[in-house]
Amino acid sequence: MGRFNIVERRVARFVQEPPTVRGATAVIVTATFIVVVGAGVLMTVIDNTEFPNIGVGLWWAVQTVTTVGYGDVAPKDVSGRLLGAFVMLEGTAFIAIVTAVITSSFVTRAQTERDAAQRSDDLSDREVMERRFDELERKLDRLAS
Amino acid sequence: MGRFNIVERRVARFVQEPPTVRGATAVIVTATFIVVVGAGVLMTVIDNTEFPNIGVGLWWAVQTVTTVGYGDVAPKDVSGRLLGAFVMLEGTAFIAIVTAVITSSFVTRAQTERDAAQRSDDLSDREVMERRFDELERKLDRLAS
Amino acid sequence: MGRFNIVERRVARFVQEPPTVRGATAVIVTATFIVVVGAGVLMTVIDNTEFPNIGVGLWWAVQTVTTVGYGDVAPKDVSGRLLGAFVMLEGTAFIAIVTAVITSSFVTRAQTERDAAQRSDDLSDREVMERRFDELERKLDRLAS
Amino acid sequence: MGRFNIVERRVARFVQEPPTVRGATAVIVTATFIVVVGAGVLMTVIDNTEFPNIGVGLWWAVQTVTTVGYGDVAPKDVSGRLLGAFVMLEGTAFIAIVTAVITSSFVTRAQTERDAAQRSDDLSDREVMERRFDELERKLDRLAS
Repeated sequence: MGRFNIVERRVARFVQEPPTVRGATAVIVTATFIVVVGAGVLMTVIDNTEFPNIGVGLWWAVQTVTTVGYGDVAPKDVSGRLLGAFVMLEGTAFIAIVTAVITSSFVTRAQTERDAAQRSDDLSDREVMERRFDELERKLDRLAS
Repeated sequence: MGRFNIVERRVARFVQEPPTVRGATAVIVTATFIVVVGAGVLMTVIDNTEFPNIGVGLWWAVQTVTTVGYGDVAPKDVSGRLLGAFVMLEGTAFIAIVTAVITSSFVTRAQTERDAAQRSDDLSDREVMERRFDELERKLDRLAS
Repeated sequence: MGRFNIVERRVARFVQEPPTVRGATAVIVTATFIVVVGAGVLMTVIDNTEFPNIGVGLWWAVQTVTTVGYGDVAPKDVSGRLLGAFVMLEGTAFIAIVTAVITSSFVTRAQTERDAAQRSDDLSDREVMERRFDELERKLDRLAS
Repeated sequence: MGRFNIVERRVARFVQEPPTVRGATAVIVTATFIVVVGAGVLMTVIDNTEFPNIGVGLWWAVQTVTTVGYGDVAPKDVSGRLLGAFVMLEGTAFIAIVTAVITSSFVTRAQTERDAAQRSDDLSDREVMERRFDELERKLDRLAS
């Protein structure tokens, strides 16, 4: 139970304050690893007929968390199916966050390049202004002398 | 029927005017919850042989909406399969919107940081301009005195 | 065959020049609809033992394109599996593009709001500059009179 | 083994330095193609009872990498399931990167359009400033003459 509380609390904190992309990646990979191993082991306890050993449990957990779902092994009683539903939803979060991390890295990269172009535009704008100021000052100086 | 009309109307409004990210999250989570429970219950009415109780219906609905699809239970007649197709498409929307919400929160966070950097750049640009104005004014004042 | 050529040509054009989001949505929804109906019908011709009627074909096509894949019906011979592989890849494109459209609408909305804030910042910058120009001109005018 | 090392090293490099969108597309499509063909062939060696020929192996690999997972064919022993888990995770990366590439192309397109609008705004800002400078210079020139 304690293990799941940790996952849950992590997920809750994640939703409340948007983490850095790096942090989100670490959290979701860790959470998914814990969920796969935890659920794979737990399943052999809950439903030992369908899941006779941890290997079968892990095999089921991996194909559930990636939403592949062959169905060659699947929980048959209520508590196993509740655990299964939890793994499916965590799997959806896993895929969503992995996709989000990669997408945001692509978008950020493109923007960094565009920002550099924009900055050189801004610079040339400022240069034009500076030259106008230089000209004005020179004229004022000539007037003063 | 009324229940589905609500979902449909919500979806239609959603597509027409892009909602806030917060609103979209609320809508899709609510819609998916209604679809899972609604379809899980409805399935026991439509196809009581394959879905003898609500537990089986919910188990099928969750594995369908997350696109896991073990196939240990699946509708066999036309009306059940039509309902199934609806749940699958809603599930695709669910995954797409959850992914979109997380991605857009990452992208927005990155941009907020970049905007802050940009603003301090703009500020230093303005400071340079202001100092040039100060210099010009001082010279003009000296000329006038 | 002609039907698939249309899909292919559309996909090719799509990849070459990034379409508008509105256009992409129309193309992918149309393409997916054509693929589901087309593959569902074609499957009853290719493998009439596994797919005795169009209803079964459509049921298989929908659960394949959404990547649910119960496996209650699945092609057993080479040509059917080739068609199946095509539907799976189109389904991946379908989910990817739907997700991309929704994500980009969220990101664009957030940026439009930020741009409006930025513009009012730029405006106040320009106002400060304009006031400096006004002051300079007034002083020059006084000097000239 | 060498083949997998290439894939792994490519993936590692990909994660370390965010590639161009064009490069990422090439890498993931190539990697996925190699994984599907490689795993499909390897499966017939590892588990020849379940996978009697390469056709069956490829059919399993495609439905695994797209996360469809009918489960009509699935590995039954440990080494086959380890390979299966690898293909599932590569499939998740495949879908995530394809989605990221399309999303980022949509977002970039929208920003390019907004940038063009912004630039014309900036230009008109500069024009206003330039006209103010022109006026100041004319006045200074008149004063000097």
